[in-house]
Amino acid sequence: MTPDEFRTHGHELVDWMADYLRDVGTRRIVPRVRPGDIRRALPDGPPDEAEPFERVMADFERLILPGMTHWNHPGWFAYFAANNSPPSILAEMLTATLGAQCMSWQTSPAATELEQVTMAWLAHMLDLPPGFTGVIQDTASTATLLALLSARERASGFAGERLGAGQRLRVYASAEAHSSVAKGVKLAGYGAEALRQIPVDGRYALRPEALAQAMARDASAGLVPACVVAAVGTTSSTAIDPLPAIGELCRRHGAWLHVDAAWAGSAAIVPELRHILDGVEHADSLVFNPHKWLLVNFDCSAYFVRDVDTLLRTFTITPEFLRTAHDPDVVNFRDWGIQLGRRFRALKLWFVIRSYGVEGLRATVRRHVALAREFAGWVEAAPDFELLAPAPLGLVCFRYRPAGTAPDDPALDGLNRELLARVNASGRVFLTHTVLGGRFTIRLAVGQRCTEREHVEEAWRLVREAATQAPSEPAAP
Amino acid sequence: MTPDEFRTHGHELVDWMADYLRDVGTRRIVPRVRPGDIRRALPDGPPDEAEPFERVMADFERLILPGMTHWNHPGWFAYFAANNSPPSILAEMLTATLGAQCMSWQTSPAATELEQVTMAWLAHMLDLPPGFTGVIQDTASTATLLALLSARERASGFAGERLGAGQRLRVYASAEAHSSVAKGVKLAGYGAEALRQIPVDGRYALRPEALAQAMARDASAGLVPACVVAAVGTTSSTAIDPLPAIGELCRRHGAWLHVDAAWAGSAAIVPELRHILDGVEHADSLVFNPHKWLLVNFDCSAYFVRDVDTLLRTFTITPEFLRTAHDPDVVNFRDWGIQLGRRFRALKLWFVIRSYGVEGLRATVRRHVALAREFAGWVEAAPDFELLAPAPLGLVCFRYRPAGTAPDDPALDGLNRELLARVNASGRVFLTHTVLGGRFTIRLAVGQRCTEREHVEEAWRLVREAATQAPSEPAAP
Repeated sequence: MTPDEFRTHGHELVDWMADYLRDVGTRRIVPRVRPGDIRRALPDGPPDEAEPFERVMADFERLILPGMTHWNHPGWFAYFAANNSPPSILAEMLTATLGAQCMSWQTSPAATELEQVTMAWLAHMLDLPPGFTGVIQDTASTATLLALLSARERASGFAGERLGAGQRLRVYASAEAHSSVAKGVKLAGYGAEALRQIPVDGRYALRPEALAQAMARDASAGLVPACVVAAVGTTSSTAIDPLPAIGELCRRHGAWLHVDAAWAGSAAIVPELRHILDGVEHADSLVFNPHKWLLVNFDCSAYFVRDVDTLLRTFTITPEFLRTAHDPDVVNFRDWGIQLGRRFRALKLWFVIRSYGVEGLRATVRRHVALAREFAGWVEAAPDFELLAPAPLGLVCFRYRPAGTAPDDPALDGLNRELLARVNASGRVFLTHTVLGGRFTIRLAVGQRCTEREHVEEAWRLVREAATQAPSEPAAP
Repeated sequence: MTPDEFRTHGHELVDWMADYLRDVGTRRIVPRVRPGDIRRALPDGPPDEAEPFERVMADFERLILPGMTHWNHPGWFAYFAANNSPPSILAEMLTATLGAQCMSWQTSPAATELEQVTMAWLAHMLDLPPGFTGVIQDTASTATLLALLSARERASGFAGERLGAGQRLRVYASAEAHSSVAKGVKLAGYGAEALRQIPVDGRYALRPEALAQAMARDASAGLVPACVVAAVGTTSSTAIDPLPAIGELCRRHGAWLHVDAAWAGSAAIVPELRHILDGVEHADSLVFNPHKWLLVNFDCSAYFVRDVDTLLRTFTITPEFLRTAHDPDVVNFRDWGIQLGRRFRALKLWFVIRSYGVEGLRATVRRHVALAREFAGWVEAAPDFELLAPAPLGLVCFRYRPAGTAPDDPALDGLNRELLARVNASGRVFLTHTVLGGRFTIRLAVGQRCTEREHVEEAWRLVREAATQAPSEPAAP
């Protein structure tokens, strides 16, 4: 394909893309496909000869698009949103065209320095205390693994890198912490049994007195409290662990404090919500995902770390073929994580922050939080529904409980599972579930860029309609 | 930015992108910037108010572009190329627009199944033996870490996941293996001392008899040979480790065999070059990067694994909030690696394979290999230059050695370092270096999509001109 053929197809695609952005809300949000449908529609082997782009694009529209779940549909209330936005898409177009691999300063000076600048902008937007340096990672799972690896090395006096992880280090997180903590503990070689799950309070936040007991018990048994992962906004219910009390315990035991604010961190750019990060001055590291709530395309996860030396000592390996004359004077981000190769991800962050301005991004977060609180109010006021957790930000956890049903009625889980399937079968909205306190819980997470009041109203209408249908009537596939 | 404003700016950008693709060869390939130049040109803090897109794009052209190293310049001979191509860029435009997060089948059924299909196509193109299943990772560094983690778990009878990695496992790779092996060994908690660096032969390939001795010695000392990483195409010189002999040793000791074919693997789609993978039937896993030589945008690394159960047992953790009704019937790629979130990367692979056809991709590889061999012939024929390693594929390792200079003359390293700086200062080509057998070595890696004979000729002309300049004359900055 020549540059001029690219020009022709690129213009066709831009029109397709603009139409998609305008019309995505009219599509079914979750597709009607069964496992294997798409595989069966595609040839087993690759074509030997080149095919015209028109045919490839036609197959994309005919075979792939009807099998996609539309994450940027305004009816998206599932998981947490993974937003994009027009300026972010434009930046991704440029990133793909340059095709730069940004492993070191020399291989992309502007990308390296723009990453430093935009990460400093984010630190400013979150009002982080001085001393944090930022680097873009792909996901919060990776960032949390970085923290666990850094903590492992620091706690073992860097013996881990020489001799292996050993079996005396311990890691602490609440029973509501994200699965990436347990996964990271296992991958980093602590061993799954090194993870202490600390009980939570009635708001699903970590109980610091339980953490204190666990750390003291381990320390007196000769074990080493190496790391605490505190959640600011758990995935199940956006519970906020008490950073000041946790930070005090970490200081006492010399443990690394990692703050997982993957979704909720973005809310801290709003002055009246900044309190969710109170106590972050105790943290050794923090992660939040601009690709979740700050309108930047996945992937773009911001990892902030205080002790850069430990990070570099954990991740730097410089073979001769990567040495450059500039190394003493520059930052080479390949030394700041697992991967050697790196995409130019700072560009979309720069385009988005400038195109919306900090006030524009704040307005988006404020709108989502207000809509979630309004929805929570509707749930509270409805006699047949109940909230199952506080809704401090954009997530509402609730269930259907017909008047007169006891809270522990074993039928409620199935009833709500069926209700949720019915709502999603509408194709108009997408909600997911969790379990809180042993109870099946419906999650409504407001956070998609285009979600307005009408979409939240529609979700509430669909939920109530589904509740009135006879429970024995099977949900549509 | 509304969809219609996006349409306007998108069309402007497509013209910019087509012009860039057409004209990139006229730009300086390595920019004239000093560390800090770009940072200093950018504001310290983010803007409060939205800025018009015209201003953002103007700043991109004025501040960022002049500071980029142009990886898709036809004069790219540095490291290994990271290609893009028009069909791949078009796919990335769609991927950014959909903004799908492909962690599980439910969150993107078509993306999951297209990944299965395109990975099966790649296995077919490489003529892999039956039994390998593929998954897309971001980089070969990550894929190699996956292999090391899987090997750790298998070798410890999955005790590692419970109790920590322990200190009795050993990993083997040649002294020429990529730095990601040493990094992965350290991160996975084996401990850096667990890595045995095996000597190489005169062609820089692992010596199997030395591997046999090392594994036997460790086994008889009560240590456990857990993993061997064999290189098919080392980074310094594209040396090819002997897979059949290594495979036999792995079987004898029950060690995991991981094949790192990050760059060279793509060459195996060419029938007359497929022999580089002879012996791959002994491998437990293999990685190669379509983003290097198969015209697919970074990042897209293909990881093939034989024992999916061990992979899943190493990486699966399923919290309630990720469970779906389809789980028993589908593949959820979140369980196939470190990250939970995943981009829709199969789309560009599909667009590229169909747009070029397998024959079109083979023609690209053949052209690059022929050009490299021609360059190697010029070096061999020149009295003042010498090859420092065989050039079986697209990489030529050479240096300047004026007639009458002894091979071990200590001045040669500095002379060649200066020559390389001079060549790169031209702004027309970009080459990098390594050290082979203790000698400073210039690498010329032919692999950029647009590189033609004229560009290789220009590189050779610039190298010879630089050699004739007085060594005392300082290289341009």
